[in-house]
Amino acid sequence: MAEGGPVLVIDIGGTKMAAGVAEPGGRLVTWAQVATPAGDADAEGLWRVLESLLVGVLASAKVGDPAGLAGIGCGCGGPMDWPSGLVSPLNIPAWRRFPLRDRLAARFGGGSLMVRVHNDAICMAVGEHWRGAGRGKRSMLGVVVSTGVGGGLILGGRLIDGASGNAGHIGHVVVEPEDGPLCGCGARGCLEAIARGPALAAWAQRQGWRPGQADVTARDLAADAALGHPVGRAALRRAGRALGIAIASATNLCDLEVVAVGGGLSQAGALLFDSLQESLRAHTGLEFARRVQVVPAALGQHAGLIGAAALVVAGDRYWTGAG
Amino acid sequence: MAEGGPVLVIDIGGTKMAAGVAEPGGRLVTWAQVATPAGDADAEGLWRVLESLLVGVLASAKVGDPAGLAGIGCGCGGPMDWPSGLVSPLNIPAWRRFPLRDRLAARFGGGSLMVRVHNDAICMAVGEHWRGAGRGKRSMLGVVVSTGVGGGLILGGRLIDGASGNAGHIGHVVVEPEDGPLCGCGARGCLEAIARGPALAAWAQRQGWRPGQADVTARDLAADAALGHPVGRAALRRAGRALGIAIASATNLCDLEVVAVGGGLSQAGALLFDSLQESLRAHTGLEFARRVQVVPAALGQHAGLIGAAALVVAGDRYWTGAG
Repeated sequence: MAEGGPVLVIDIGGTKMAAGVAEPGGRLVTWAQVATPAGDADAEGLWRVLESLLVGVLASAKVGDPAGLAGIGCGCGGPMDWPSGLVSPLNIPAWRRFPLRDRLAARFGGGSLMVRVHNDAICMAVGEHWRGAGRGKRSMLGVVVSTGVGGGLILGGRLIDGASGNAGHIGHVVVEPEDGPLCGCGARGCLEAIARGPALAAWAQRQGWRPGQADVTARDLAADAALGHPVGRAALRRAGRALGIAIASATNLCDLEVVAVGGGLSQAGALLFDSLQESLRAHTGLEFARRVQVVPAALGQHAGLIGAAALVVAGDRYWTGAG
Repeated sequence: MAEGGPVLVIDIGGTKMAAGVAEPGGRLVTWAQVATPAGDADAEGLWRVLESLLVGVLASAKVGDPAGLAGIGCGCGGPMDWPSGLVSPLNIPAWRRFPLRDRLAARFGGGSLMVRVHNDAICMAVGEHWRGAGRGKRSMLGVVVSTGVGGGLILGGRLIDGASGNAGHIGHVVVEPEDGPLCGCGARGCLEAIARGPALAAWAQRQGWRPGQADVTARDLAADAALGHPVGRAALRRAGRALGIAIASATNLCDLEVVAVGGGLSQAGALLFDSLQESLRAHTGLEFARRVQVVPAALGQHAGLIGAAALVVAGDRYWTGAG
């Protein structure tokens, strides 16, 4: 590895795989993305798609020899064994305990390159803290509202990993303890069970929303809400209210300064954020908590890639794992 | 100050003021406590009571010259300006922005002694992490269930202060978002609004509990519950359930290994802990969260004093403030 060299950065989700080459300061020199192969792909097929994507961005950035890289930073959907980087992404069934870190190290660095893999929502939070909405703040929560609801926690100016690399799971903060919907995690009343895109779309359909197409997404719902559809608007209020409760709990517990909300649903704007702020205010009474700022994520779809770079080049703040 | 010297330690609450002298390893050489003067005391009267207590324990520990101390560590009821140590304890109306840190420094060190003041629940959590139930763990939450519900958060092996020294406020995690009782903080449905001793005793009285004396406390309630009183038992279940929800949220968010529960109400034992564990299990589905251990605090009434010593002698882990 070459200190001061560029960083190969990767962001792997259930819908798309993105990669790029970042300068040490975080600017993306180049980036590209492909759709994540669907359920019928096997582990090696998926790996080959990722490999081509990476070879492509390295060529595009004119990185001839990976030994000139400072390292590889990678965000991937959870859960995973951390920091060893054995990944089992909930939305990528083909990979179960897939040794992503070791495979990247073997393919691109002959084993000598620094390769750091962390949860994709954590990479988003790290990116937003390093170069986005949380820049310079001591306490920040990053929230990603998408197919799931994830997040990452920066406290005392450093990424908090928790006991097993799983800190930041704001999606499983309890927002409806009494008879709340069953969550994918097996518990009841989690934020994710209410505010994740598919749950929200399903709720809206039960309320009579009839989307124009079969393959319905929360994005369609947000679009209909923006056009004034009452059920769409109610669904976004429902998500905003749940987010406000969970963010209030996190703020009271962690004394947060700023919460950056990203992910597809966050693009719904005021329709989501107004009810979020209202429920946040209803559940934060202490003076310090009332000062928290909840803002849209600043880096958009690139936050995860930029955060992945920070794992490598700003590891003093954002990496506590071995290696 | 004298490195390696003993530490003068203080724990100031609305009911009692305790002080002691601790060896650098945390063992209390001596300690004593007095009742906190009631509402009619003025700021200086209260200070004189504390001062006599401190002079007494120094004499008892044969510390002739405070210059031989490594420093003074002090826990005090919140809120406070931190780290400056201007205290305004909710349950001590005589002190409003009282300059506790500066007064201690001026009286006992001629201004040159290290004096560190933090929230009393944080000192309890620090004590339990340093020498009690959380020893050696990377992630711990300490919870104090008493007149209020407070706490302290240790993540990555260090005390988390948050943006303004207020991290650890588990009492204001939302556990009853829908029509929950109004909390002293002004919000609705906080853990503290349900599980603090006075709220619990008032709830039991509304359910028909008739305590034997006028000055009713949660301790009487716990005693009656232990004797089999059905409302007493229901009240402890109610507190346990609320604690379980809040601890589940904190565990999911912060990836905790251990939660140490102290304070008067925690002495109710299984009557409280059984319902706590049940609701914790109902709201933790992820594998990492199901591994959390919730245990009674190990250091009893001395946890706050021992934690106050750690602020001074183990400041690399437990103190991020200036000074």
